[in-house]
Amino acid sequence: MAYNPMTHRALTYYDAVPSFLSGKDTPRAYLERCLATIEMREPEVQAWMALNLDGARRAADESTARYRDARPLGPVDGMPIGVKDILQTHDMPTSLGIAGNENANTRQDSASVWALRQAGAVILGKTVTTELGGAHPSKSRNPFDMRRTAGGSSSGSGAAVGAGMVPAALGTQVVGSIIRPAAFSANVAIKPSFGALNRGERQGLSQSCLGVHAGAIEDMWHVAAEIAARAGGDPGYPGLGGTLMPPAPRRPNRLIVLESEGWAATEKPTQEAFAALLEQLTDEGVLLLRRDDNPLIEVFERSIADAVSISSELVAFENRWGHANLLRLFSGSLSDTTMAQIEQAAAMTVAGYRDLLARRAEARLRQVTIAPLADGIITLSCTGPAPLLETIVNRPTGRTGNTAFNAWTSLLGCPALTLPLLGVEGMPVGVQLVGQPNEDEAITAMGRWLAATAKPVIR
Amino acid sequence: MAYNPMTHRALTYYDAVPSFLSGKDTPRAYLERCLATIEMREPEVQAWMALNLDGARRAADESTARYRDARPLGPVDGMPIGVKDILQTHDMPTSLGIAGNENANTRQDSASVWALRQAGAVILGKTVTTELGGAHPSKSRNPFDMRRTAGGSSSGSGAAVGAGMVPAALGTQVVGSIIRPAAFSANVAIKPSFGALNRGERQGLSQSCLGVHAGAIEDMWHVAAEIAARAGGDPGYPGLGGTLMPPAPRRPNRLIVLESEGWAATEKPTQEAFAALLEQLTDEGVLLLRRDDNPLIEVFERSIADAVSISSELVAFENRWGHANLLRLFSGSLSDTTMAQIEQAAAMTVAGYRDLLARRAEARLRQVTIAPLADGIITLSCTGPAPLLETIVNRPTGRTGNTAFNAWTSLLGCPALTLPLLGVEGMPVGVQLVGQPNEDEAITAMGRWLAATAKPVIR
Repeated sequence: MAYNPMTHRALTYYDAVPSFLSGKDTPRAYLERCLATIEMREPEVQAWMALNLDGARRAADESTARYRDARPLGPVDGMPIGVKDILQTHDMPTSLGIAGNENANTRQDSASVWALRQAGAVILGKTVTTELGGAHPSKSRNPFDMRRTAGGSSSGSGAAVGAGMVPAALGTQVVGSIIRPAAFSANVAIKPSFGALNRGERQGLSQSCLGVHAGAIEDMWHVAAEIAARAGGDPGYPGLGGTLMPPAPRRPNRLIVLESEGWAATEKPTQEAFAALLEQLTDEGVLLLRRDDNPLIEVFERSIADAVSISSELVAFENRWGHANLLRLFSGSLSDTTMAQIEQAAAMTVAGYRDLLARRAEARLRQVTIAPLADGIITLSCTGPAPLLETIVNRPTGRTGNTAFNAWTSLLGCPALTLPLLGVEGMPVGVQLVGQPNEDEAITAMGRWLAATAKPVIR
Repeated sequence: MAYNPMTHRALTYYDAVPSFLSGKDTPRAYLERCLATIEMREPEVQAWMALNLDGARRAADESTARYRDARPLGPVDGMPIGVKDILQTHDMPTSLGIAGNENANTRQDSASVWALRQAGAVILGKTVTTELGGAHPSKSRNPFDMRRTAGGSSSGSGAAVGAGMVPAALGTQVVGSIIRPAAFSANVAIKPSFGALNRGERQGLSQSCLGVHAGAIEDMWHVAAEIAARAGGDPGYPGLGGTLMPPAPRRPNRLIVLESEGWAATEKPTQEAFAALLEQLTDEGVLLLRRDDNPLIEVFERSIADAVSISSELVAFENRWGHANLLRLFSGSLSDTTMAQIEQAAAMTVAGYRDLLARRAEARLRQVTIAPLADGIITLSCTGPAPLLETIVNRPTGRTGNTAFNAWTSLLGCPALTLPLLGVEGMPVGVQLVGQPNEDEAITAMGRWLAATAKPVIR
């Protein structure tokens, strides 16, 4: 089941809505098709922790009735959605990816889940996450090659969308946990600006985000916008800007081609594929700027050169006080990866944490200085196709793939959008558009233009 | 048991430490004296939800052994501390003040509780909170007059410290929930800068703070500093500045006397007592500035004139998504006060929330403009003595007293310190020192000077 970006058809929802309104199709029938795909592919992909079949069918029937009455609640009415198993749902357990914690149930809905239910969405199930959203691999496999990782930590959300099981799923990212698995599984996905979508009960990290995986940019936007319209952003933040409808496609005039830590780690065929895509942009009249073209870009590149380690250490420290609780509650069942993070955090000090914050603040200042130079940034979403499990299983870090193209956007709190525009060695590779903080709508507009204009590249 | 600020002796800990080191006294004996006070006064004061006697005695014995070896862990080693029952403790339930939820146990420690245990403190018990930290009165009574409120929402922490049951207790404030009950019960207390002390699992409100009630400013500082040194501030914040030892007393040169919404609501005897205190400051050479003295102060006063309503609405919206969970889990047992907040929130929109954020941002800008004018702000901590329960029980809002002197510091995220310097009609009334954000150490230094210099005023 090799991936070909020319022929691959992702599961979409926005274009099914007209037939719901005309009565030719129904959300219930749509849901049943999703369930058929799940039945077929789940045994190998392993994207789900739990499914609420009864609840989903009931919600789909209610949505069907609303379309029949020509009164849908909005663009996600009836849309089957997967929820990363790190976000709570009142009708399903929330394991946080911890072995032995599969039955933990808070009986509460996260803010985004509450908002999506209000908007008529069908909360179908919980998607597999890595342990505590960390770097320890989950059981999910890449839907395009069972020998490869689905990435992490939103493994199940990426894989479920990639396998066409659902048109959209929620993910979270604190280093690379949305964009990387999305890029590995041919999703469209957004890691929004920090604070843009309400993280609900998960407010405990200073650069984590709630985001959306989808088969189409339109569905991605609809899900994000419905969350923002009802649950808002994080406390104290204005929340995602824009309307419920996705912004019209817009061609950028200038884009910065950013290397970050990722480029040097990128495999040759992926570099070539990306270069071929950039050529198309040049042909379309988009001016591309690189670190050699402007010293502000060079200084910015340098300010994010250690984004992976700074991000990882920030997260480790912020999780520190919770580690004693983890050890008390789950001692013995935690992975070596998590135990290593606990050890790393124990050795940290408040002074060390403040130093990391200062480095992050410096990078954010440098980010501001490049704002006038271009309409946004273009770069890869991952260093190549999803790695083979056998090549990564014994590595102490990076077991769900390299985060080098992702950590810096998490560090900066800026929005990142991945589009499945490249096919390398029969596997998907994503291309990333990045904006200044709160330019989520702008990069989505550019993303729609890029998706409509660029011819996918195969290498 | 009328309150007289001239003769009242609060329970303190820092001055007991020398006798622990000399062997004349022990933390275990100190704890037993606390327990004797609790046994005597708890039946009427009702400050506690739960006590962990075995755990506390064990921790006190361990501390006693450390002092015997002349190796205490730091200034709070052996200190009995009460924890507001809205913060989780692994060894006691956390009810959140919800009736019927008295046995809920997360089996986790909040960040501050973890930090204090690490520092050797004795986590003695959970102090009563109002329902969800809101405005619905709790069962606690004012330790100086059983007919009066203990304030809220940190009712039990304020009352326990006021009654001399413990030398310190943790509170939280989102509108007026630390400073008000502290002022009603003759506590010293700090509502720190936003983000200065790690709120642990309670990160869900954009202007809430963790703070400390104590019998002495030295103990207050030690508790705050030990939390900051180990658990840091909130994620993304540098955390409380300064050293583990309290800053040396410092006389301010200039102070702004702020009216806020509070002054017009203040009872005459309290106004007179405060005026008499200010006279002492003038005699000490402190220059006092008021709204008439500088247009920047006047504009600042206006920017915070609706702080109570802006704060209440911000909180209501931020709690909104959780209301569906509350209604599902606790329907029927929630107070009419909480139900009214749920209704208020349901009518709000994201656009309305953004407007509130803009008004808050405006007030914060105005706060910056007055920074060069003075070393800080002095004002009352409450509009008068704790109200009689019979006069407030039927009022739909303000059932735990007026928050008019408190809401604006919550809105601005600036540090506020209350000192029990006034006695009005046989009841304590607090005086508040307020600084610019992250000037916690500076107002503590001024507070030490004020506590040592000013003669308490009785009216």
